[in-house]
Amino acid sequence: METIEKMIEDFKKVLDDSTHTSPETLKHEMIQWLDETLSPRLKQVLEERETQSSSEQTVTPFVVSGKIDYEKVILKFGCTKIDESLIDRVERLTSRGAHVFLRRGFFYAHRDLDKILDCHERGDKFYLYTGRGPSSESLHLGHLIPFLFTKYLQEAFKVPLVIQITDDEKKIWKKLNKEKSKRLGRENVKDIIACGFDASNTFIFSSYATVGGKFYENVVEIADCVTVNKANSTFGFTGEASTAKMIFPSVQAAPSFSSSFPHKLFPDEKKNIPCLIPCAIDQDPYFRLTRDVAPRLDFIKPALIESKFFPALRASGNNGKMSASDANSAIYINDSAKDIKRKINSAVTGGRDNLEDQKKYGAKLEEDIPFQYLSFFLEDDAELEHIKKEYGEGRMTTGDVKKRLVQVVTEIVERHRMARAAVTDEMVDAFMTPRPLFE
Amino acid sequence: METIEKMIEDFKKVLDDSTHTSPETLKHEMIQWLDETLSPRLKQVLEERETQSSSEQTVTPFVVSGKIDYEKVILKFGCTKIDESLIDRVERLTSRGAHVFLRRGFFYAHRDLDKILDCHERGDKFYLYTGRGPSSESLHLGHLIPFLFTKYLQEAFKVPLVIQITDDEKKIWKKLNKEKSKRLGRENVKDIIACGFDASNTFIFSSYATVGGKFYENVVEIADCVTVNKANSTFGFTGEASTAKMIFPSVQAAPSFSSSFPHKLFPDEKKNIPCLIPCAIDQDPYFRLTRDVAPRLDFIKPALIESKFFPALRASGNNGKMSASDANSAIYINDSAKDIKRKINSAVTGGRDNLEDQKKYGAKLEEDIPFQYLSFFLEDDAELEHIKKEYGEGRMTTGDVKKRLVQVVTEIVERHRMARAAVTDEMVDAFMTPRPLFE
Repeated sequence: METIEKMIEDFKKVLDDSTHTSPETLKHEMIQWLDETLSPRLKQVLEERETQSSSEQTVTPFVVSGKIDYEKVILKFGCTKIDESLIDRVERLTSRGAHVFLRRGFFYAHRDLDKILDCHERGDKFYLYTGRGPSSESLHLGHLIPFLFTKYLQEAFKVPLVIQITDDEKKIWKKLNKEKSKRLGRENVKDIIACGFDASNTFIFSSYATVGGKFYENVVEIADCVTVNKANSTFGFTGEASTAKMIFPSVQAAPSFSSSFPHKLFPDEKKNIPCLIPCAIDQDPYFRLTRDVAPRLDFIKPALIESKFFPALRASGNNGKMSASDANSAIYINDSAKDIKRKINSAVTGGRDNLEDQKKYGAKLEEDIPFQYLSFFLEDDAELEHIKKEYGEGRMTTGDVKKRLVQVVTEIVERHRMARAAVTDEMVDAFMTPRPLFE
Repeated sequence: METIEKMIEDFKKVLDDSTHTSPETLKHEMIQWLDETLSPRLKQVLEERETQSSSEQTVTPFVVSGKIDYEKVILKFGCTKIDESLIDRVERLTSRGAHVFLRRGFFYAHRDLDKILDCHERGDKFYLYTGRGPSSESLHLGHLIPFLFTKYLQEAFKVPLVIQITDDEKKIWKKLNKEKSKRLGRENVKDIIACGFDASNTFIFSSYATVGGKFYENVVEIADCVTVNKANSTFGFTGEASTAKMIFPSVQAAPSFSSSFPHKLFPDEKKNIPCLIPCAIDQDPYFRLTRDVAPRLDFIKPALIESKFFPALRASGNNGKMSASDANSAIYINDSAKDIKRKINSAVTGGRDNLEDQKKYGAKLEEDIPFQYLSFFLEDDAELEHIKKEYGEGRMTTGDVKKRLVQVVTEIVERHRMARAAVTDEMVDAFMTPRPLFE
């Protein structure tokens, strides 16, 4: 997209390149250039506000592309890296080992997590908030990650959790029919419940069903603090964005503030209860904006604990997120054992071209998706360390690693399938009914 | 505000005015001008999108200024003038004389009113929708106008009515504290009920209390059809507008569609029921946009019946609307008889400077606020005609006309005060409870 600077430079170039010998002919050429070239280009720029300069990596809530340098992302966003001492503190306060996603650096960044720990240490209340935009019938492994991690946080800190199903978001961005978006949302809720959340202090809600009342009041308060220019610069929206997109960031922000919920959910309607949000790093713009707005409304800034992206089976290294649109790049929770085996066998690996080279050089682990998946799902640190060493130094083959991953993933999926089969409509309704969460 | 054309013209002028004898010095001057003048000005224009070219009259939902040429307004907006034959048809279909506001040309424009009459003639259902943004403790006479007219329509056509109290709007535009906006809304509801609406088929609702559920679903559908550029060009918003302003037009649009309401209000949830909106002409942009969107959502375009502005006591002729912010320019429903007398006596008139001239030339009726007020509130056509002739030809004085107006207005205000005193909280709750409107 064009910039003002570029146009001014072009204009200077036209001037520099001119070979006129009289001012009059130069004037004539320039006026022509103004009318025929600059003027229409300026008008176009007025219409299409520049969104962002091109760069090697793009991380927004809508686009994740390029080779991701996670250190750069947090530098750019202004979050803080999670260090060993913070992990140690989490372990000490919860009297249990940190979750693999935390101790293996997958959840790697945060905002105010230390303040949440202070709050917990004082014996004060906080709650967790996470969400899901329902874009597919079934979840895939990548979708499970934040829920598995959130379940750990809920258990470790014994705190209430709210889960927003953004059925409105999928209507706005994915042009899903409203009824389909609501239906997928309800199906996804079953998968979420199957992760094993505690029914006594988990509230799952759809945007469509919940925006209104106190929630809408807060949406208006938040939206009123966010200008269109701010939304444009934060999310890369242009004038062609729908006005629905302009309001959605406030709909996603509202659950960060306890006053958005019906009074009975939280014990004290007047008191702000701090909120911790586990999410992938691409959601940071939403909550950066939420945090900017919070003090203006006398609300507490929500704290964040932020993850890297779960890699796709078919893309190498850190490229992109697992996508719900390419069915073969992801393992779905409703895939058969056969599908799982086939998909894992076709995954991109860091193994060498032939057995001889593999033995000689070992696998390039940082490019090896099966190994990376094992680092997510193999709980046993000793076994993972063993595989890392043996595979990395050529004593294990890609086939061995894939075989082990097929076992691990099949077991997880099988366990999930059984849990999901046990989820009844009554359970879904129970989770989605507003009720006191701090009992 | 600057336009691209203006900048290009300025640039040409710089070129034309230059007196350089060598191309090099001309180039140098122009590059300097580009860097120092054009570039910053362009950047500013990028930020503040041009809202509208200046003109003698401004009519938007937010600003009404200048001498209003009502014919030009409907030409610009694209509404249709209400002619005698349409008024005759209304009288025939309702078996009663048209309301003074209609027969005296105050409600002067429409969109699809003929279609609503077709619908009524076929015996099909339609409903009325009007609203109020609560900006003051008490209503003034100008605020009563649309309600008095809507009451006439409700009685004449025997149809249901929904009244939206846009407490969210006043938070967004007037920066009213949310609680105050809700409180003023409830006070205003009492004044509205006091106008005498039929409790059996009138539903009054606040935005804050109602956005959600089906209503929010339609807000998303509508907002999704309206780009930021479209909102900017329709309402003159710029990038500095809050994102709350971007969503509000969809909140005001939603009641135009029967599916926005809880199912029980309307008899058939699947069927679209046509809607007629009585409003002042400055609200046309909202509903023009609503009508643009309707076919894309398979909804029926709402019909409109649109009024001129009720003049302020202190501004001459057709200038502007009665304003709630200048207490002396308006007669409030809770003003005392003494206040009313004082305010009317200080009104701008078209009477001559002295009695001699008044007798000789007569009053300039088109500039005379007391006479105009009589044309709103004096039901008796014969008496109004008599005053018009006598005052216009100098046989009546300004004092006579003011005296008659004081009588008429005091009586209206006194009647309203008594009706309002009889409005209980239970009545307010009853009007604001969703219930079947077509019984």
